[in-house]
Amino acid sequence: MFSIFKRLILGKTLRTAELKHEKFNVFWGLPVLSSDAISSVAYAGEQILLVLIPVMGAMAYRDMLYISLAIVLLLFILVFSYRQTIDSYPKGGGSYIVAKDNLGKLPSLIAGASLSIDYILTVAVSTCAGTAAITSAFPALYEHRILITLAMIIIMTLGNLRGLRDSAKIFGIPTYLFIVSIVSMIVIGLFKHFVLHIAVSDSTSHLRQSVGNVSIFLILKAFSNGCAALTGVEAVSDGIPNFKEPAQKNAKTVLMLLAFLVLIIFGGTSYLATIYHAVPVEGKTVLSLIGEQVFGKGFMYYMLQATTALILIMAANTAFSDFPLLLSYVAKDGFAPRQLSHRGERLGFSNGIKLLSVAACTLVIVFQGDTTRLIPLYAIGVFISFTLSQSGMFMRWIRRKSEGWRHKAVINGTGASITFITLCIIGVSKFTEGAWLVCILIPTIVIGMMVVRAHYNRVADELSLSVKLFADVDQSEDMEHVIVLVDSLNQASIKAINYGKKISSNIVAFHVSIDEDATDKLKDKWYDADPGIPLIIKQSPFRDIYKPLKEFIDSEEHASKPGDLITIIMPQFVVKSFWQNVLHGQTALLLKNKLLRDRHIAVITVPYIIE
Amino acid sequence: MFSIFKRLILGKTLRTAELKHEKFNVFWGLPVLSSDAISSVAYAGEQILLVLIPVMGAMAYRDMLYISLAIVLLLFILVFSYRQTIDSYPKGGGSYIVAKDNLGKLPSLIAGASLSIDYILTVAVSTCAGTAAITSAFPALYEHRILITLAMIIIMTLGNLRGLRDSAKIFGIPTYLFIVSIVSMIVIGLFKHFVLHIAVSDSTSHLRQSVGNVSIFLILKAFSNGCAALTGVEAVSDGIPNFKEPAQKNAKTVLMLLAFLVLIIFGGTSYLATIYHAVPVEGKTVLSLIGEQVFGKGFMYYMLQATTALILIMAANTAFSDFPLLLSYVAKDGFAPRQLSHRGERLGFSNGIKLLSVAACTLVIVFQGDTTRLIPLYAIGVFISFTLSQSGMFMRWIRRKSEGWRHKAVINGTGASITFITLCIIGVSKFTEGAWLVCILIPTIVIGMMVVRAHYNRVADELSLSVKLFADVDQSEDMEHVIVLVDSLNQASIKAINYGKKISSNIVAFHVSIDEDATDKLKDKWYDADPGIPLIIKQSPFRDIYKPLKEFIDSEEHASKPGDLITIIMPQFVVKSFWQNVLHGQTALLLKNKLLRDRHIAVITVPYIIE
Repeated sequence: MFSIFKRLILGKTLRTAELKHEKFNVFWGLPVLSSDAISSVAYAGEQILLVLIPVMGAMAYRDMLYISLAIVLLLFILVFSYRQTIDSYPKGGGSYIVAKDNLGKLPSLIAGASLSIDYILTVAVSTCAGTAAITSAFPALYEHRILITLAMIIIMTLGNLRGLRDSAKIFGIPTYLFIVSIVSMIVIGLFKHFVLHIAVSDSTSHLRQSVGNVSIFLILKAFSNGCAALTGVEAVSDGIPNFKEPAQKNAKTVLMLLAFLVLIIFGGTSYLATIYHAVPVEGKTVLSLIGEQVFGKGFMYYMLQATTALILIMAANTAFSDFPLLLSYVAKDGFAPRQLSHRGERLGFSNGIKLLSVAACTLVIVFQGDTTRLIPLYAIGVFISFTLSQSGMFMRWIRRKSEGWRHKAVINGTGASITFITLCIIGVSKFTEGAWLVCILIPTIVIGMMVVRAHYNRVADELSLSVKLFADVDQSEDMEHVIVLVDSLNQASIKAINYGKKISSNIVAFHVSIDEDATDKLKDKWYDADPGIPLIIKQSPFRDIYKPLKEFIDSEEHASKPGDLITIIMPQFVVKSFWQNVLHGQTALLLKNKLLRDRHIAVITVPYIIE
Repeated sequence: MFSIFKRLILGKTLRTAELKHEKFNVFWGLPVLSSDAISSVAYAGEQILLVLIPVMGAMAYRDMLYISLAIVLLLFILVFSYRQTIDSYPKGGGSYIVAKDNLGKLPSLIAGASLSIDYILTVAVSTCAGTAAITSAFPALYEHRILITLAMIIIMTLGNLRGLRDSAKIFGIPTYLFIVSIVSMIVIGLFKHFVLHIAVSDSTSHLRQSVGNVSIFLILKAFSNGCAALTGVEAVSDGIPNFKEPAQKNAKTVLMLLAFLVLIIFGGTSYLATIYHAVPVEGKTVLSLIGEQVFGKGFMYYMLQATTALILIMAANTAFSDFPLLLSYVAKDGFAPRQLSHRGERLGFSNGIKLLSVAACTLVIVFQGDTTRLIPLYAIGVFISFTLSQSGMFMRWIRRKSEGWRHKAVINGTGASITFITLCIIGVSKFTEGAWLVCILIPTIVIGMMVVRAHYNRVADELSLSVKLFADVDQSEDMEHVIVLVDSLNQASIKAINYGKKISSNIVAFHVSIDEDATDKLKDKWYDADPGIPLIIKQSPFRDIYKPLKEFIDSEEHASKPGDLITIIMPQFVVKSFWQNVLHGQTALLLKNKLLRDRHIAVITVPYIIE
């Protein structure tokens, strides 16, 4: 049943040989790799206004524009820095790899930890913002927003477990649709304002005018919030192998186009917000408010909301392919559980996908689907990885001193400094609002990674072949110390005894007596059937099987030569369905797990299948 | 850690020999065995009023008195019937046993199913009513009522897992305190009214006067609700072995005293309700309203509420000892999973206790801790078991024709008829309010019980010794078909290979190749180390270990004699802590479970312990 259902949802298991990547040209690479960066426009502007408006009232819009411009400037510095990363890492240069290469183990782990947190937040923030786009258009859905968000995540999880990459081009279409919608909005909005001079219903009239002191701290806080717009820039330099040849040139073109698109879209919407004075309220996003004023509540408005929701989902989806890939690198280096580097039935890193899904759902539930409360956690991780990646590149030029290294070092050095300054701004201004959580999480994850690696190292040491090799076995010697566990005398125990007789002529049967009646019955049957081996019975006053057995084993062990294994044969019923298993308990399994903690015991399970 | 915590909460494991029962005389037997019956007074009267008041207004109180008297009459009929059960079943005559003895399998299963439902409802209803007594006195706690109820159930669960029966006499004290409180209330209440002529603040003035038609259906519905007062009567005839000699005589005395106590308390409070015109409102029980008027909000009032809460908890607690005991009988007869008949570390039937706890908590959560919504489910199960038990006794006299059988048959026959009629009344009048659920649940449980029994029967048949017995083993013959699974060549796999060499000179190593690099590494190491046995390598295009192995096993099987077992040796890392297990995955375990579904495979686990 479950298995048929699973096949239906996930499709049939794929061969390893079927693993292949679709390659993109610039036209398709742009939308697929930039959806994360472009989609952040949907919430970044709003996050700036949410900080400014309560204090500055209608004055907020002027400062918003300046802050937006600063962020776009920051983006261009990043683009120039990352073009050099693309040149140096033709196989893809995420910050984990760049930091590992140039800065060493600890920085790479910090980069890995902050990237992991970011991917999880990308999913949580993007799906929450996608839901906000939907509920802005259909307010009746607002009260179900958490359910809608969780449903999105679950559908994406199933999609990625099935493996969506085969048809990745489809993912490019929503991005282009979003670009078209939003550019139309900007053009029509500007036209209405400057050419038609249509009056705007000014919803800011109720706002207090420049309340309180506009501190530099407030501006920095708004800037920090807006930096959420810069997430997803790394995706392009991560994804170089996905480009058609010349891959590096194509990637650099896409990165440049991406920057101009963000400039137009983020700058344009910020400017529109200042002339249309959109005031974010609960249940209505800024983008939705502007769209409503520009388009009216017609087809174009719904188109805008739909494409916004779609591109945000695409953005979350990029995390579903990047996070498991990152974890697989980390796991291959031994810093994360090895299962994360295994490909699932459909060739995706399914454990990483599931982990991402659970973590994102947890965040959505804990933060009640509120984008504003998630954003402070978001930007800090992004800028840690930017800083590490740029510093890594800087160190690379300094060390290698290849042609033109001074020039290149200046560019990456500038990138590193600027992102580090931004990181400090975000860390300080948002510390109490959630950044502290990231400051605890990252060291915790890094320590966890090192503990995992230490464990794997220890296991590898213990298993290494230095100490002993293959034993010379005297085949004429009989196996000693073979014990068959007997609960009652039936087909299953007889099969086990017969098996035991084959491997040794020197076996004993062992019975733990919990119920007097059952033991008497066994004795009667035993002497009737005469199995020809001794039956040892021990009382168990505490109704526990392990202890009397362990005592007996220990007494045997004293009689044996050092290094000899004691063999326990356990008959085991095997029933076919799950509910039948419930009827037979798991005593045998628990007992076996306890026995195997002793290095002198080998356990033989002899199954008896009940049809 | 967990184990220390568990010891602290539950105490040390007890020996089977420490199992003993405290025996009661009449004085202690009365409160311990009758808490369920007496405590139902706390909610039964209220349930009558809740049906009558909305339709009849102030006229409700007259009819309430008649209905209460009818219920007390029913109780006396039951008492005379059950006195005969006590005479016939000195070891305890619950309806499951009586029905099994006299009516056959199906009726006994129906009795078992309805009793099981009832015990679960006893816990849910009594704890909800206990919480209502507390929140009536302290209204601030009202909004936390579900949490309070769940906390009660969990504390009771832990107490019963620890085993409370050792000090059962303590449980008698709250019952006596409750009796004292409530009899004081009745006496003072009557005295104030008839002697002091103190005017009652009539809260019924706002009630509509005799609204709508007072149909017979309404009266029957109120009667059905009130029948909740009769739960727990069976406890005495169930508990005969707990009495000191002469046990049966003592039990009969207790039963008679119980009936008189219910007469005084239930009759008395119903009468008080009519003169004090208590109108149940949300958050205030009828008993609390009467108590407030009689005592004022002083010490006696809080005493009444506290003892009410306590006796209701005691009532729930009786279900915690009776339900697991009932299930252990049913499980010993093979109609329920066998684990329910095993005694836990502290000698209680711990699986039954846990099951009861989970089921009751679920009910409390689903029904939002609302006694009124649970009551309709309650009474129907009680009366099914009454009817079956009395019919069983009736059939017993008819069949045995022992001395005075006619007289006895008339008594039990009357009991059976009256309880059957009541059952029909409850079933019809409360059908749409929840009784339908019980009508679905009971057949479902009965069918479940029969399926379980059929499964155990089939297993017993398959395991029975009729077909083959012990094999004659030719010790000179070598074990054939021994396969060692090798992932990589390390200490663990070498230990497994050495073990394999001991049991057969004819073993092969088998490796499933998922990762080319890992396979190449294994090959190199293998030829360096030279284990002296063949290494077979199979590719796995689907990254799955089971299938290639199974194909190889199948090919071996064709080469073997019928009945030969194929032995798979699996090296297994054993790590000490739980989190380390997470780092190593469960591939081996899953693989083993799949292999054991084949009757021709025995699996040997050779552990390698990582310190």
